[in-house]
Amino acid sequence: MVQYKATHLDATFAALSDATRRGVLEQLGRADSSITDLAEKFHMTLTGMKKHISVLEQAGLVATKKVGRVRTCKLGSRQLAEETAWIEAYRARWASRFDALDDLVEELKQKEKSDGRKSKA
Amino acid sequence: MVQYKATHLDATFAALSDATRRGVLEQLGRADSSITDLAEKFHMTLTGMKKHISVLEQAGLVATKKVGRVRTCKLGSRQLAEETAWIEAYRARWASRFDALDDLVEELKQKEKSDGRKSKA
Repeated sequence: MVQYKATHLDATFAALSDATRRGVLEQLGRADSSITDLAEKFHMTLTGMKKHISVLEQAGLVATKKVGRVRTCKLGSRQLAEETAWIEAYRARWASRFDALDDLVEELKQKEKSDGRKSKA
Repeated sequence: MVQYKATHLDATFAALSDATRRGVLEQLGRADSSITDLAEKFHMTLTGMKKHISVLEQAGLVATKKVGRVRTCKLGSRQLAEETAWIEAYRARWASRFDALDDLVEELKQKEKSDGRKSKA
């Protein structure tokens, strides 16, 4: 049985699976913004933007604060460290699988050469 | 207007947002597997596993091949390079935002010290 566990990863990757939400994170990386400003920038209704912000907030990627009637958004505390670690591990496994394939091809080539020599001898 | 575009990223991040699918990728990083074996390993119906494989295949993370009655799965050609780049850029922005905050706090501290000296003088 493979060891695997559900962590924050589900929520973060789901939050990142939308181009608008990634755009919002890029924007908040430049400056804090109100939801109204974000809705305008992304040509979206306030309701639509609120939903995206809610997904990002639940994933810990955005933090919001209401001052008076304005809700301001900023980057949350999640630094995507776990996500980076998972992807790095995947890439390492991917590379080693394809290295193994290269080795096998090389081995078969060598075998062919050696068989060739034997049949000539 | 913020520059952002929908790429493969939507499909990949969505594919990665499920613990079973991440587990399948980890498993396929060790060895190719049939869908039947994967369904068994993850205590899942064949239909359920087929759906997960289909999501992974559409994201280019898994490639399948049918030989006779058995469909074998292996890691696909996507190496998550774009995903890594996106996350790295996010982390860099995140760090610079919080560095800027540190600088501001440091500046305020210095100002306080300097004001303290002035009031003593």
